[in-house]
Amino acid sequence: MNSDELKDTVKVVRNWLVEARDNVLRKIDSRLKVDTKSGRSDLVTNIDRANEQFFVSKIRQFDPEAKILGEEGFGDQVDNIDGRIWIVDPIDGTMNFVKQRNHFAMMISLYIDGQGVLGFIMDVINNELLYGGPEYGVYLNSTKIDEVKNTNLSDGLIGLSGPLVINDNFHMQDIAQTSLGMRIYGSAGIDMISVFKGELIGYISYLKPWDFGAGKIFAETLGLKMTTIDGQQLGVLSSKPVLLATENAHRDILTIVKK
Amino acid sequence: MNSDELKDTVKVVRNWLVEARDNVLRKIDSRLKVDTKSGRSDLVTNIDRANEQFFVSKIRQFDPEAKILGEEGFGDQVDNIDGRIWIVDPIDGTMNFVKQRNHFAMMISLYIDGQGVLGFIMDVINNELLYGGPEYGVYLNSTKIDEVKNTNLSDGLIGLSGPLVINDNFHMQDIAQTSLGMRIYGSAGIDMISVFKGELIGYISYLKPWDFGAGKIFAETLGLKMTTIDGQQLGVLSSKPVLLATENAHRDILTIVKK
Repeated sequence: MNSDELKDTVKVVRNWLVEARDNVLRKIDSRLKVDTKSGRSDLVTNIDRANEQFFVSKIRQFDPEAKILGEEGFGDQVDNIDGRIWIVDPIDGTMNFVKQRNHFAMMISLYIDGQGVLGFIMDVINNELLYGGPEYGVYLNSTKIDEVKNTNLSDGLIGLSGPLVINDNFHMQDIAQTSLGMRIYGSAGIDMISVFKGELIGYISYLKPWDFGAGKIFAETLGLKMTTIDGQQLGVLSSKPVLLATENAHRDILTIVKK
Repeated sequence: MNSDELKDTVKVVRNWLVEARDNVLRKIDSRLKVDTKSGRSDLVTNIDRANEQFFVSKIRQFDPEAKILGEEGFGDQVDNIDGRIWIVDPIDGTMNFVKQRNHFAMMISLYIDGQGVLGFIMDVINNELLYGGPEYGVYLNSTKIDEVKNTNLSDGLIGLSGPLVINDNFHMQDIAQTSLGMRIYGSAGIDMISVFKGELIGYISYLKPWDFGAGKIFAETLGLKMTTIDGQQLGVLSSKPVLLATENAHRDILTIVKK
């Protein structure tokens, strides 16, 4: 995409997010229809669904040839990375959304032939939007983020997923104890915003494409590393335990994972 | 205290908090002087100290006969609960303050002969203030909080301290797995605001008087339970693992603790 197309796309997607945010906030105090998916802590609500349908219809109008990969299944069956792919998470952190009406995100990303082009993560309640990509740069609201300090694991706080900690998968408890402290926020989007703001030096969780699509683009742009938990390249369509961290913390964590 | 004295005290303390918040925000981007206390994750900064000195000098002027119990030691040696005691935590969640410049709180409470009279918890960055007491009522900014829904452990999210989870003290991992998920925010003040807003059904951590002084007053006013981890009464001057929860979740958690 040339620079005008990038600017235009950013403007259009930001408008979708503003409209979607208004929609969510208007309905946030209403009684939600909540269903479970894979288990009692994997939820979907009528608002997740309506929000994904909203994004899918906007993307179809704006970019009719593209494929869409959406968490709630209103997009397409996507089985290869060829061409233009929009990845949509209408409400990330649905448990927080349901139980807290806080600490949840909306995430969108655009990949072309497997290359990340633009990502968007919006903290809905705090009205914070992280967006951009390798050609466009990365912005938090209107402030450009040029770098994230390359902190060691032992010098920072790390965001983790609760189940990985409880089960001590990949020596997660050792990783937590080597850091200055673990934080558990319950939303990949909120955790990743914290990493790119420099509040956390990394984040580890089992993630699906809609959970990491936008974050992977920011990581690549800002010199952080986002890989599988054992340091392998993270495919756009994979569902795996994912490690996002500063370069130094990534190295420190891999040493512990491979113990 | 009569109702006019309560109103006057609330007004005065709110003004201190506004002024203290301005002071902190003015210095937040400066280079901090950070010292460790009991270990590498127990920090104090020049701003913690300056902020406590600010509160202590305000309290001395306003209530010269009272005793002051402050985290950083600028108050008095307090060894009994007789008379008027002000409890001050100038920066709660100092690790978050140092590493995130976010997710930290200021907390003040007033006890008379061991009875909680007024408490104040301010989320500095979000500018949220929870305040009040049994006679005054409890307010979040200008909205009165009348009740917190009496949710079961299995129906809510719970705030925990990282070390208790890692060491699995008091069957903490079983408690986390019985809930819908654990959250770790790293500041007693921020966790307790979340409980009183209904975002978490409880919070468990090792706490000192300045960590729980204000929260204990709100809990007693709003029908939540705040006790030691084994369900005993929590003395104002004690330093113990503390369990704050809705009545139902408190019962559910004690059952697990006593297994």
